[in-house]
Amino acid sequence: MLGRTYEKQACSAARALEIAGERWSLLILRNAVFAGMTRFTDFQQSLDIAPNILTKRLENFVKEGLMMTLKGESEHLEYVVTAKGLDFKPVIIALTVWGDKWAAPNGPPTVYEHEGCGGRIEQRLYCRTCQGDAKTKHVIARKTKAMAVYREKIAKRVGSK
Amino acid sequence: MLGRTYEKQACSAARALEIAGERWSLLILRNAVFAGMTRFTDFQQSLDIAPNILTKRLENFVKEGLMMTLKGESEHLEYVVTAKGLDFKPVIIALTVWGDKWAAPNGPPTVYEHEGCGGRIEQRLYCRTCQGDAKTKHVIARKTKAMAVYREKIAKRVGSK
Repeated sequence: MLGRTYEKQACSAARALEIAGERWSLLILRNAVFAGMTRFTDFQQSLDIAPNILTKRLENFVKEGLMMTLKGESEHLEYVVTAKGLDFKPVIIALTVWGDKWAAPNGPPTVYEHEGCGGRIEQRLYCRTCQGDAKTKHVIARKTKAMAVYREKIAKRVGSK
Repeated sequence: MLGRTYEKQACSAARALEIAGERWSLLILRNAVFAGMTRFTDFQQSLDIAPNILTKRLENFVKEGLMMTLKGESEHLEYVVTAKGLDFKPVIIALTVWGDKWAAPNGPPTVYEHEGCGGRIEQRLYCRTCQGDAKTKHVIARKTKAMAVYREKIAKRVGSK
C-alpha cells in the first residue's frame, strides 16, 4: 500500500481514483461496462491508445479485481468486467451528466436507458429522511468517526517509511 | 481544441475527464465544493501536493470556468468555485460510493448529508418511464443522432492537422 498517489488522503473518492483515475482508465472501463468490450484489440482500436498503456491499465484492473481474464473460444484472451468493475457505472454516468450539461453543444452523444422499458435514466441525490430528491447545492459532507481510524493508519504508514 | 487527451472520443464523460481528470484535479474540486476551500495554501497543505502542480490545476479550473479568482479582504487570492464546478459534486459522490463499498474496510470516512434535515444522501439511478429506481446492471448506453455530428467534427479536426 506504499507509494500510492493519494495515500495520505482518508477519502473513499481518493481510493476510487487511485484504482481508476489514471489517464484512459475510466474510458477503458466505460467501454467494458457499457459496450461490453472484452478484447485488447477492440479496446485498442476504439480508444486509439498506445498498446503499452492499455496493457498496464488492463493488468491493473485484473490486479485490483475490476476485471478477470478468460481464454475465449478463439484462444483470444478476454478481459471480463467483474461486479467491482460494473459498480463504476454510476461514476461514468455522473461524468456524462456533467459533460452533457457543460461540454456538449450539439446535445448528448450518448444517453442512458433502462434495459427493457427503454426509459431515460436520471442520476438523483435522494435524501433518506425527506424521502425525496435533494438539490446538489444542499448536499454536504460530514466526517465520521472512521475518519480518525484511517488518519491513524495513514500516520503510521507514512511515519514508518 | 487541438491536442486534448481524449479528443477523438465523442463522449461527454471523456470531455468531463479532460477538464477534471488529471492527477489531483478531482481532489482539489472535492475540497472546494465540500470543504469550501478557496486559498492556495489551504489546498496545498490539505493535499500535500507540489505547488507547481497545484498552480497548474487551479489555473486550468479558472480557464475552464470551474473557478473564478477574487481578491479577499486580506489581499489573499481566493479561488471560488462556480456553478460549473459545483456540478462536479455528483461525480465526487459517485466515486465516494464506489470507494465506500470496495475500499473502506473500516467504514466510510465521510458521509453525505442533506443540509438542514441532516438526512443521509443516496445516489440513485431513476427511470423516468418506470418512475422508480433502476438497478445498475439494467442501465445501458445508447448512441444518439448527435453522436454522428460529433464524429464528423472530430474527423475534420483530426484530418486538418
